[in-house]
Amino acid sequence: MEREKVMELLEHIGRKAKEAEPELRILSDEKKNQVLNQAAEALVRHTQQILAANEKDMEKGREKGMKAGLLDRLLLTPNRIEGMAEGLRQIAALPDPIDQIIKEHTPPNGLHIRQVRVPLGVVGIIYEARPNVTADAFGLCFKTGNVVVLRGGSDALFSNQAIVEVLRETLTTCGCPAAAISLLSDTSRETAAAFMKLNSYIDVLIPRGSAGLIATVVKNSTIPVIETGSGNCHIYVDEDADLTMATEIIYNAKTQRIGVCNACESLVVHEKVKDVFLPLLAEKLSEKEVELRGDERACATIPMKAAKEADWGSEYLDYILSIKVVDSLSEAIAHINRYNTGHSEAIITKNLSHGEQFLREVDAAAVYVNASTRFTDGFEFGFGAEIGISTQKLHARGPMGLEALTSYKYQIYGNGQIRG
Amino acid sequence: MEREKVMELLEHIGRKAKEAEPELRILSDEKKNQVLNQAAEALVRHTQQILAANEKDMEKGREKGMKAGLLDRLLLTPNRIEGMAEGLRQIAALPDPIDQIIKEHTPPNGLHIRQVRVPLGVVGIIYEARPNVTADAFGLCFKTGNVVVLRGGSDALFSNQAIVEVLRETLTTCGCPAAAISLLSDTSRETAAAFMKLNSYIDVLIPRGSAGLIATVVKNSTIPVIETGSGNCHIYVDEDADLTMATEIIYNAKTQRIGVCNACESLVVHEKVKDVFLPLLAEKLSEKEVELRGDERACATIPMKAAKEADWGSEYLDYILSIKVVDSLSEAIAHINRYNTGHSEAIITKNLSHGEQFLREVDAAAVYVNASTRFTDGFEFGFGAEIGISTQKLHARGPMGLEALTSYKYQIYGNGQIRG
Repeated sequence: MEREKVMELLEHIGRKAKEAEPELRILSDEKKNQVLNQAAEALVRHTQQILAANEKDMEKGREKGMKAGLLDRLLLTPNRIEGMAEGLRQIAALPDPIDQIIKEHTPPNGLHIRQVRVPLGVVGIIYEARPNVTADAFGLCFKTGNVVVLRGGSDALFSNQAIVEVLRETLTTCGCPAAAISLLSDTSRETAAAFMKLNSYIDVLIPRGSAGLIATVVKNSTIPVIETGSGNCHIYVDEDADLTMATEIIYNAKTQRIGVCNACESLVVHEKVKDVFLPLLAEKLSEKEVELRGDERACATIPMKAAKEADWGSEYLDYILSIKVVDSLSEAIAHINRYNTGHSEAIITKNLSHGEQFLREVDAAAVYVNASTRFTDGFEFGFGAEIGISTQKLHARGPMGLEALTSYKYQIYGNGQIRG
Repeated sequence: MEREKVMELLEHIGRKAKEAEPELRILSDEKKNQVLNQAAEALVRHTQQILAANEKDMEKGREKGMKAGLLDRLLLTPNRIEGMAEGLRQIAALPDPIDQIIKEHTPPNGLHIRQVRVPLGVVGIIYEARPNVTADAFGLCFKTGNVVVLRGGSDALFSNQAIVEVLRETLTTCGCPAAAISLLSDTSRETAAAFMKLNSYIDVLIPRGSAGLIATVVKNSTIPVIETGSGNCHIYVDEDADLTMATEIIYNAKTQRIGVCNACESLVVHEKVKDVFLPLLAEKLSEKEVELRGDERACATIPMKAAKEADWGSEYLDYILSIKVVDSLSEAIAHINRYNTGHSEAIITKNLSHGEQFLREVDAAAVYVNASTRFTDGFEFGFGAEIGISTQKLHARGPMGLEALTSYKYQIYGNGQIRG
């Protein structure tokens, strides 16, 4: 698209979104739940229509030789559409965080100050080829009174358009502004770049997808970004660890699902237990043919590939585990703080004070004593929803539930106070 | 400075700051308070040295024809240095937010999850010619366990260097890393631009100063920014207002201090009370020779200058007030939501439901019923400190106290949990 047309399109979508914002901001919880439940029904009712659109994307994908894994992420089935619908129903059932009074107090000036939870406003979401994100992002944003503007990947454009059409129809039927959700119909890079600079219309931008996508958004956006990120997660096996527990936890964190950000990528092990522990672990991990890459001392303990410097910083997302031997808890913490991505880190220890030092000194969103890093997840944390896992420290850190999509305002009651 | 040198300087400062971070993060409250109190003493003890440096800045300022107002902002006196010291002592006396448990819970998986307050890490502050910000920013960041890297204006460079030197000496004397505070000695635009892209070392950037400075930082920074902003603040006088109260509040909000972001810039008044109210108000405001600029109906009520479209969006920071007449509360809210900067807005009314509608529907950091907008301030809000007033919705909104300089982490206790 030529630049002028792109800006016209973005201006139009942005203005419509901003216009819808005041109405969304004050919707009652009942109304929001009504829309979410009806949207769920409508998605199921329009299954054939959505599948037909998805088939067009799949065809394009097959033609351009998309890999099986990606094709599977793109594929919709009646079951997956029911899954999207169920997601919307679950979001409807969650408590509404909007209008919650977070704190209230009366300072000496006599003003009564209430800190009240409010929507962020207009949320932009940039994501890749998974069409289920479309319904999910709408559900989370709508429940929290936010307008959402989506920029999905070009590979899923037909599917996304079909889903958004159903959602917009539902909004209109329920008497809500259709502009509560919109989708950029142009998926070019230039449009994405211009979208990231739409500060006058978009309050916050959330990229969901690969590390490359996220880095591009962080670098180019002038809109505040919530960075959801990669996880180079470590598990440290302390000198006082229960080694059976350590084996089970690492086996789980490494192999239960390899392509996820909370999977374990690196083992740090205390010198004193390496001789007993590494053979145990290697045997267990051999069940899944996990490749081990160790430092000098690890390699001297049992046969494995030598780790290179690049291994310490790698998020493999594969059946590979790097192994570093350390002489102390402090060394383990320093190693982890140097190479981690601020996601999830665990210590396995029976020593409470070691556990506490680790929890305190390791700098990450989620730090564990004696549990698998795989628990870093909005559902496992009991939030009932998840918009992503933040690896930044501003605004929200770790699994983000509905609250991460809110801000607050101060509502102040006076009786004529003036400042002296 | 040539580009290579600039990058070398920034890398050096960034690396030192990052190295100091783990130590700062776990300092006890007692230790932090000891440093803050000793820094206060040291500033007073080095008054002559700081004044001598300040005199060099003043001389440069006078030579280049700096205006009286700016010269006054730049000037240090023994009293002002004592003020900086007192600021540090007050910060020491505040409760330490770090290590606070914000929430804790145990979801069905049996993990005990604690949300614990932690420092942000390394905070960058870009500010203009007020040297007192130097000590202030250090105090707030240090109390919250953050390392701070300052980029002050070139006009105050000698003063800032003298203050930072005293603070770094105190840190060293107390056994803390001097790199807890550093100041860019190069104040060129190129260095500032490179500083704003130092993502690997700086966790958050806070600009303090003019709207132009803030806009530049928002536009160019790839580091997350907390936007402290301008205030185009409105007061709406409802049909059910106590008009004497309204007069007092507007007089206060407009004239008590004109150059501040929480001063009132625009009056919105209900048609039904304009004939009685505008003459009352005009008389009161004439005491300070406030210029009125009204829409058609306001001008038809009492003689005043006609407002132009640009007036509705103007933060005058001067003895000028724009006046808009509306037919309803909804029209007032729509007008305010269109032109405000998300700072502070007030309604004067005896009608509770009008007050509540205003509080709910006006989109701003602080919304008031029957009080002056001038109260939007960390001290007036009872926070005991203020790093600025945020007009964005991410992370922190409104007056920012110590908590705004913190993030959180999840500390999780398990007993061998793995994910099924």
